[in-house]
Amino acid sequence: MNIKVVLKILGTVLFWESLLMFPSLIISIIDNTYEIKAFIFSIVLIGVIGLILKNTNTNDSQLRKREGYASVAICWLAMSLLGALPFYLSGAIPSYVDAVFETASGFTTTGSSIVTDIESFPRGLLFWRSFTHWIGGMGVLVFTMALVPSMGARSVFLARAESPGPSFGKLVPKISETAKILYVIYGAMTLILIVFLIIAGMPVFDSLIHAFGTAGTGGFSSKALSVGYYNNPWIEWIIAVFMFLFGANFALYFLIIKGEWKNALKNEEFRFYGITVLAAAILICINILPLYNYSVIEALRHSAFQVSTVVTTTGYATADFNLWPMFSKSILLMLMFFGACAGSTGGGVKFIRILVLIKSVAYEIRHTVHPNSVQTVKIDGKSLDNDNLKSIMIFFFSYVAVMISAIIIVSLDNFDFTTTFSAVLATISNIGPGLEVVGPMGNFSEFSDLSKITMTACMIIGRLEVLPVITLFSPSIWKKH
Amino acid sequence: MNIKVVLKILGTVLFWESLLMFPSLIISIIDNTYEIKAFIFSIVLIGVIGLILKNTNTNDSQLRKREGYASVAICWLAMSLLGALPFYLSGAIPSYVDAVFETASGFTTTGSSIVTDIESFPRGLLFWRSFTHWIGGMGVLVFTMALVPSMGARSVFLARAESPGPSFGKLVPKISETAKILYVIYGAMTLILIVFLIIAGMPVFDSLIHAFGTAGTGGFSSKALSVGYYNNPWIEWIIAVFMFLFGANFALYFLIIKGEWKNALKNEEFRFYGITVLAAAILICINILPLYNYSVIEALRHSAFQVSTVVTTTGYATADFNLWPMFSKSILLMLMFFGACAGSTGGGVKFIRILVLIKSVAYEIRHTVHPNSVQTVKIDGKSLDNDNLKSIMIFFFSYVAVMISAIIIVSLDNFDFTTTFSAVLATISNIGPGLEVVGPMGNFSEFSDLSKITMTACMIIGRLEVLPVITLFSPSIWKKH
Repeated sequence: MNIKVVLKILGTVLFWESLLMFPSLIISIIDNTYEIKAFIFSIVLIGVIGLILKNTNTNDSQLRKREGYASVAICWLAMSLLGALPFYLSGAIPSYVDAVFETASGFTTTGSSIVTDIESFPRGLLFWRSFTHWIGGMGVLVFTMALVPSMGARSVFLARAESPGPSFGKLVPKISETAKILYVIYGAMTLILIVFLIIAGMPVFDSLIHAFGTAGTGGFSSKALSVGYYNNPWIEWIIAVFMFLFGANFALYFLIIKGEWKNALKNEEFRFYGITVLAAAILICINILPLYNYSVIEALRHSAFQVSTVVTTTGYATADFNLWPMFSKSILLMLMFFGACAGSTGGGVKFIRILVLIKSVAYEIRHTVHPNSVQTVKIDGKSLDNDNLKSIMIFFFSYVAVMISAIIIVSLDNFDFTTTFSAVLATISNIGPGLEVVGPMGNFSEFSDLSKITMTACMIIGRLEVLPVITLFSPSIWKKH
Repeated sequence: MNIKVVLKILGTVLFWESLLMFPSLIISIIDNTYEIKAFIFSIVLIGVIGLILKNTNTNDSQLRKREGYASVAICWLAMSLLGALPFYLSGAIPSYVDAVFETASGFTTTGSSIVTDIESFPRGLLFWRSFTHWIGGMGVLVFTMALVPSMGARSVFLARAESPGPSFGKLVPKISETAKILYVIYGAMTLILIVFLIIAGMPVFDSLIHAFGTAGTGGFSSKALSVGYYNNPWIEWIIAVFMFLFGANFALYFLIIKGEWKNALKNEEFRFYGITVLAAAILICINILPLYNYSVIEALRHSAFQVSTVVTTTGYATADFNLWPMFSKSILLMLMFFGACAGSTGGGVKFIRILVLIKSVAYEIRHTVHPNSVQTVKIDGKSLDNDNLKSIMIFFFSYVAVMISAIIIVSLDNFDFTTTFSAVLATISNIGPGLEVVGPMGNFSEFSDLSKITMTACMIIGRLEVLPVITLFSPSIWKKH
């Protein structure tokens, strides 16, 4: 691997991280709260490290798959380790392991929190905490839509498996141009959301916080009761709809801008996503009706919000679904596993992969009944080959393998099975809250440091869809070649 | 599909089922207990149905993959539906759904039970209940080792994925001969086990019951406390070792008989199986040491027994592992998912598949680091192709998909998540007991009929490794072609 290229990229990213801390610093200065020094120190330190690494000398600037993988994995890790400094240095989060957990949870757009009293945080830190969601969401979009196709990475990411659907890599040839379009769509959608939230009656600062969490499908809130705090049906519906939108493939929005409405709506992954969300919301609505005095409107609002927050792996809460019947909880757990669409800010396995798998099983059955049939598995009218399936399978298995390993480590803390299982699922799928102890009204503070480190790793591994991270554990990647 | 061939096979199988009920009838007559009439009626009814179907006229006796799949699925179902009659007609199990659950649990070698007071059962019914394990275990061996290779079934079963390892299909060319060798090995091993158990001090009748449950990796016991009842370390070690042996690929025993010891021990799946069992037993032993007053011998006996019973999907119990720490429970849950080896009487995903998946991920990482490497994924020195991977992936996904669907249905009963999840996992993997309500000291009686039917389906689907059963739901398979 050409380590110099990786360091150069890391430098640029860290330099940007330092710049992106300025808004938080400004808020701290306006409020004149205790974390000002922590921000100044962090900005300087991260900025200097960034500048030094940025100027790494290298002749060979070509980004191959291995350098691409290594740089995203290292960038996400370094951003979390350094982005945690304001929390740690200000004393707001006294443990560094906790601070890194919280920051990684931000950048990976997970939204799991170890903070027990979030409302005591100064606004500067609250802003930084939620801004990491927005930065992380953007980072994932640029990574999956612009960077990966340009590396020619075949197997893991959006990769071939997703390539039958629309992807920016095909729509726009140049990386920088793709990235620019993404910035604009992402920024514009966030802005519209902020305006809507303010109109619905949310305070301006809170609107920013919750728009960042929605856009990145992260889920950090400035309130202990999350979105439920506002007790405002309009706010809940707005956020529910926007979570759904940020969970769709961004290439579709590009198609829509280009006027290709029909192609966008024909997209099979999007249809599958839409139908699943609708079906889940209706089933849960019926199931929880008795809990809401048979008010369909109220039950539907809660079920739609909860389905949207879980399927997009956001993690905002309006109701404590721990108290819902097991049937609703099972559906939500299934959706946690599904995750959002490819090319979105959401985490999880992704709908396109589930769709390919379902079609492959159907194909296998058809082939057993009619051995001479020559049909193939198709998505959006294009045939999939064995390599597509292979890449999905490797993703799927490595995902499950990491999950099982993490569950075994976290189980050393001796929490009940539901807590242990759902905590790991919630972090690796970048959702946020799980069930029981880590439910919507709970948090991750009671786990041991070992479990917190394990789950921090899960968040980053899940966010980067496993292989880029575990590739770093291959000793030979660190050799010069 | 040629339905006549399927009916002919079903007739032969049912005729045999009727004959296999005789030993139970004889025991009933000796004991002169209330179920005599139920056995006589069942034997006559099943025998007559069998004889009629056996004589179905068909010119085309060729068994293609689709007929093969359909016949095993229908046979397992029909055997369970009719084999339940002695329990139901005698009144020992008053609900027919319960009786079918119990019988399917027997034939699929699962061992999940709805009986709350097993010690009140007459010996004739106890014998039949455990004998179904022995028959089912034999059926699976003949199906996977003799029938499937002869159908040229490519994708699901032992299939290509496992074919790099030794398989009877290759060792012996003719089906009837393969089946005969399997009968002899299976019978001889059961006999040795019975002798060992009697020497260790178990009553003769109990030895038969527990040998049937061990050989089929089923797990039905005649005692409420299962194997723990005897409180005899020798018996526990004997059963632990034999469960492990019945969980290994039977082709290995054939190699050993032929004198090819070395080849048998070189088998990669067997090594992986052995090392995993050893590591799990040691880790759990350390974890539960405080519960057994730091007696290594006692802790190791309990951990070895529990690991062996779970990994082979048998389900016998000597200790209530519900009371063990979460770390031990997590390892046991992982082993439940793993299952035993291909070509054994055990259920689950099977070690060979896990091994292929681990190697594929390692290959993918190597390929990212060294894109020009030409190495391939090898098992036992032979390369795997994309079709192997594809068949594993389709199995893996359809397995998870059935599991998720079943969890959602069973969750309507509103048990806690651990009970719901582990009940479905325990039935689809053919293990028997799960955790919490369905733990080693609990049973499945409290579930609704809908859940019991769902889990009965899970047992059969899991036993036949998914595709043969779900293929039946394709409408076009029922057409004549």
